[in-house]
This record gives sequence, C-alpha cells and structure tokens, in this order.
Amino acid sequence: MNWLNEVKWDEHGLVPAIAQEAVSNDVLMFAWMNREALQKTAELGEAVYFSRSRKRLWHKGEESGHRQKVHEIRLDCDNDVILLKVTQLGHEPANTGSPAQSIACHTGRHSCFFSLYKDGAWHATEPVLKDPAVIYKKP
Amino acid sequence: MNWLNEVKWDEHGLVPAIAQEAVSNDVLMFAWMNREALQKTAELGEAVYFSRSRKRLWHKGEESGHRQKVHEIRLDCDNDVILLKVTQLGHEPANTGSPAQSIACHTGRHSCFFSLYKDGAWHATEPVLKDPAVIYKKP
Repeated sequence: MNWLNEVKWDEHGLVPAIAQEAVSNDVLMFAWMNREALQKTAELGEAVYFSRSRKRLWHKGEESGHRQKVHEIRLDCDNDVILLKVTQLGHEPANTGSPAQSIACHTGRHSCFFSLYKDGAWHATEPVLKDPAVIYKKP
Repeated sequence: MNWLNEVKWDEHGLVPAIAQEAVSNDVLMFAWMNREALQKTAELGEAVYFSRSRKRLWHKGEESGHRQKVHEIRLDCDNDVILLKVTQLGHEPANTGSPAQSIACHTGRHSCFFSLYKDGAWHATEPVLKDPAVIYKKP
C-alpha cells in the first residue's frame, strides 16, 4: 500500500503537521500538509507545508531562508496528524559569542508558541531574535 | 479582553491542541479544543479536550486514569493553535526497577506518534507498555 494512502486526509485533503526541533525537542510551529506537501517533504528532506491562506505549497524558508531539515516523519495513532523532527536553519544572534537560537517563527522568535497563559491573559515570553522586516526584506 | 476571545476558533468552534510532556519534551498527542474545553483546562489544571467523534468534552484520562496535569498553556503566533506542557499520569512498567514511561496513547504506548516513515512505509517504533484491554477494562 502506498504510504500516502495510509494517511487520513481531512475533507480539505489536509492533515495537521507539528514541527519539533530535534536538538532541543522544542515544538517550533504548527502547519498543514496536503498529499503533495508530505510527498515533497519526504523527497527533499526539507519541510514543505500547504499554506491555507495562499492556497499553495509552501517550502518553509523559501523567503526567510529559515528552512527545516527533516530527520523524522511520524504519524499518530489515528493516522491523521504528522510530526516532523527537524533541524531549524537560521540562528540568531549570528556571529557572536552568545548562545544562538534557531528562528522558526515569522515574528523572528525561536518558536511560534511564545504566548503563555497566566491569570486570565496571554503574555509574550520569548525574545524577538531578528527583526521580521530584515528577515523578509526583498533583495 | 477575555483571553478566550483572543483565540481564533475555526468554523467548527475548535482549535488544534498539542500535548507535550514537560519532563521529556516529548510530543505525546494531538487533539482538539473548543472554548469550554480550554476554559476547563485552565480552571482544573488538567487537560480537557473536545472529542470530535463523541461530540462532547473529553477530560483526558476519564476512563484510563491517564490524566494530564497542565503546567503551561501556550498559544501560537496566529492565535489558532494551543500547546500544553503537561505531566502525563500513569506510568508503566509500574512497581518495578525498570525505568517507567508515561502512557498517553490509547494503544498503551508512551506517545501517539509511534509510526515512523522509512523507505516508503510506516513502521511502529514504540513498545506497548500496557495492554489497552487492561487500561480500558470496565470495573
């Protein structure tokens, strides 16, 4: 059986995909994949998602350079969620003695999950490592 | 502003929720939450999801006893995915000298993401720590 056929795609032909950093085990981001995105991810060894807003394949890092090298592709017990173990490319601060962190989030933060609930409100907890205006500057 | 109103619920009133084990950083499972599930999770300090198949709130562990103590509730940059940092209750092998692992999956495994892609197929990689027939045995 084709491995892609074992995935239970939803009514839109998509499945949720979680990207976890291999070295830290941090959950970096969440996105969606269609069949072609998952196939390309396996072929390239780099994360390819399906952008629901842009309605097209989204090779993570295609603009920012913050690509994700994929070490493992996992499927959950219901066959309807993908977990990627990745190396996140693009670290800041670059070229300094300080410990650098990878940037997965379009806000310039390490992880997309930087909002922490406390006492009835959400609080931003992670520093912006690089200005998004610089990350997404057109050449 | 009410913190629950800042969450972007989808057209079904749901958001994806990822449960990550605090001690290991392992991604244990993926489920869905509606507004009431998220509110109850914050109130109880235990993971409450919304079961799409049963169409009702699902207090994780209500049958198996494998509840999840919630340490952190996080929201992603698009305000539409929840990440829980949890302590997963229920460890096996119990009462032995061997290192015990928590059980989050209804198959009796540590994590739901036990299927690993390799060479065009999915391969089960984690041991069953406890027989599901025993976990879900009615009294």
